[in-house]
Amino acid sequence: MHDITASIEFQMSLLLFIALSGYLIASRIGQPAVVGEILVGMVIGPSVLGWITYTSFVSSIAHLGAVILLFVIGLEFKLKDIAKIKYGVIAISGIVVPWLGGYFLAVWFGFDAPRAMLIGVALCATSIAVTADTLKEIGKLKTEAAKAIIGAAVIDDVLALMALSVTNQMSAGTLSLAGTSLALVKSFGFLITGALLGHFVLTRFVNKLDGMPIARKYPEFVFIFAMMIAFLYGMMAELAGLSAIVGAFIAGVSLEGVGLKFSRSFKEGSEYLRIIFASVFFVSLGIIADVSALTPDVLGYLLLLSVVAVITKVVGCGIPARLYGLSNRDSLVVGFGMSPRGEVAMIIALLGLNQGIIDQPNYVALVLMSLLTTIVTPLVLRFWLYKGEVA
Amino acid sequence: MHDITASIEFQMSLLLFIALSGYLIASRIGQPAVVGEILVGMVIGPSVLGWITYTSFVSSIAHLGAVILLFVIGLEFKLKDIAKIKYGVIAISGIVVPWLGGYFLAVWFGFDAPRAMLIGVALCATSIAVTADTLKEIGKLKTEAAKAIIGAAVIDDVLALMALSVTNQMSAGTLSLAGTSLALVKSFGFLITGALLGHFVLTRFVNKLDGMPIARKYPEFVFIFAMMIAFLYGMMAELAGLSAIVGAFIAGVSLEGVGLKFSRSFKEGSEYLRIIFASVFFVSLGIIADVSALTPDVLGYLLLLSVVAVITKVVGCGIPARLYGLSNRDSLVVGFGMSPRGEVAMIIALLGLNQGIIDQPNYVALVLMSLLTTIVTPLVLRFWLYKGEVA
Repeated sequence: MHDITASIEFQMSLLLFIALSGYLIASRIGQPAVVGEILVGMVIGPSVLGWITYTSFVSSIAHLGAVILLFVIGLEFKLKDIAKIKYGVIAISGIVVPWLGGYFLAVWFGFDAPRAMLIGVALCATSIAVTADTLKEIGKLKTEAAKAIIGAAVIDDVLALMALSVTNQMSAGTLSLAGTSLALVKSFGFLITGALLGHFVLTRFVNKLDGMPIARKYPEFVFIFAMMIAFLYGMMAELAGLSAIVGAFIAGVSLEGVGLKFSRSFKEGSEYLRIIFASVFFVSLGIIADVSALTPDVLGYLLLLSVVAVITKVVGCGIPARLYGLSNRDSLVVGFGMSPRGEVAMIIALLGLNQGIIDQPNYVALVLMSLLTTIVTPLVLRFWLYKGEVA
Repeated sequence: MHDITASIEFQMSLLLFIALSGYLIASRIGQPAVVGEILVGMVIGPSVLGWITYTSFVSSIAHLGAVILLFVIGLEFKLKDIAKIKYGVIAISGIVVPWLGGYFLAVWFGFDAPRAMLIGVALCATSIAVTADTLKEIGKLKTEAAKAIIGAAVIDDVLALMALSVTNQMSAGTLSLAGTSLALVKSFGFLITGALLGHFVLTRFVNKLDGMPIARKYPEFVFIFAMMIAFLYGMMAELAGLSAIVGAFIAGVSLEGVGLKFSRSFKEGSEYLRIIFASVFFVSLGIIADVSALTPDVLGYLLLLSVVAVITKVVGCGIPARLYGLSNRDSLVVGFGMSPRGEVAMIIALLGLNQGIIDQPNYVALVLMSLLTTIVTPLVLRFWLYKGEVA
């Protein structure tokens, strides 16, 4: 008989069990559900018990979960609410300040220039999934601060990609203005054509599809179509060098205005998919973070790195938000909301490790910094900035 | 840049695109959706275009889809409707007749005894997914014939497992009454305890859970719990030597009687999951069947094998159904409904190939026989037996 722990049924039931335990523990200690899911994931994963590892199946399902989550988040936003110059400014400042912070911290620790630059880049990219989920859970997704965070995070992804591309080219000695410009054109090109096509063509097409015979015969047709668009946009974003989740988000924004008469609701359907698969995504964040790799001499560096990571986003995003007229509280929400580095920094750290730019302790520190910044944000939002406003 | 066709987004969007095309073509040529999905899957897959192969990702998602599908089907059945002696008799007769048919056909073709026995076993096991989906699509899932099919198919799975185990032991020279009895006890033990535990304990627990603070705080909690139970039952079934989908079905039957007051409906949620993932499962049946392996000298054998496969189930299941008082039409529905061999026969064929019991042409013929019997059933149900009753 084959090993049952390798079976899909074992892994799925354990992942969902971890998610349920995460809800229970989060509720018991008064934390957001996502924090509970990450923590229980760490306990069940290789860090402590080792009941489940980050298999390719777990990775695939978590990846699906992140894509579906951002699609669902996108469905709650109108294009005109997030495509604003001021969010671009917040994003640029929120890239430059963390990059400088990471670079100089690394130089101060005596690391060479390529390594310092890569650490700077790892501090650039915001992972929006956890913040968006937390804002959704506490009912603050429709606020001005949430729009600023989401709008800035999308542009942030483009800029972090640029920073990574420049760093890669510099360490390979192939830096060229042409190459960087091309990447910039590709990614902005995707964002703009994807959003416009979605807004003006897709919305109308889906509204029309809803009344067609095929959709009236099969009420699930439009739902399957919408999910196909979510993954297709994810793929296009990847082709343009962006994260798939940014593409899925743009797909969601594109389909926000659709009103169905006959078909099953893809908004409701994707929300049900999100419940299962985003849970697996958050659990996987705990599984992937192997804290047993944490040695005492990395600890001080890790804490400093995490503090720098949070402060540079709070300063870099919060100050422009304040200058654009957001309240002190909302500016802090933007700053802390942009702080989670999540899987983006982990991917950059892995790239750096594979290319020999950083070493193992640096890699572990970057991965755990991602996790710490990801866990801190829901706590700050819920128990400080939105204290008393959340059930 | 990595190969985009290996990305999850590419594969998911293509799989869903194939599913949509399947709906369109099925609707155009007046066939059930599942037939369209399998056919387009064959065209896009390695057989013709080769745009997608049966990667481990496709296999995982298809597997999830089959489990979720049978869980959803289970939710429509009451335990007392399917646990009946007469369905056991239909199942036993529906195992013995196809086994004899396969065995003697193989002997007639001059194959040796182990090979003939394995071919007999491959003809035993019904794959219920396609029939259940078709009956659901045409609104016949609540009929007496449907109950007979589902009830018999579950017992059929146990008996086919026995037949496979006996064949394996005979070809390895280790056949023992103790081993076979143990396997029989294990699998019936799972079915009985799983169903009773589900019926008497789980239903009450979920009803209670629905009113608990955790479920009232997080309306998705019960849905995640229900899906965890589906996969857990799938895993337990695998441990007992059965297919995971039988376990998921028993989980569905167990939760059939739950009535929720506060939580999000897991019946609705799992139905949305089914729409996406069962589509991928059906598409994958087309992808996995590489018809380019079909040579002219296999063709005659394949057709004869498929005819024997269908006739032996129609006779083996239909006659006892008729003797138990079902109408002629309903007895034929039971016989043809039990005919699809689907992925079960494919798995047995693969086992036989790997152990050197059968050769490549035999393997291809068994795989294509599975596909043919699977495609024939929805056509027969829709266009002959339920003709004029379906929109």
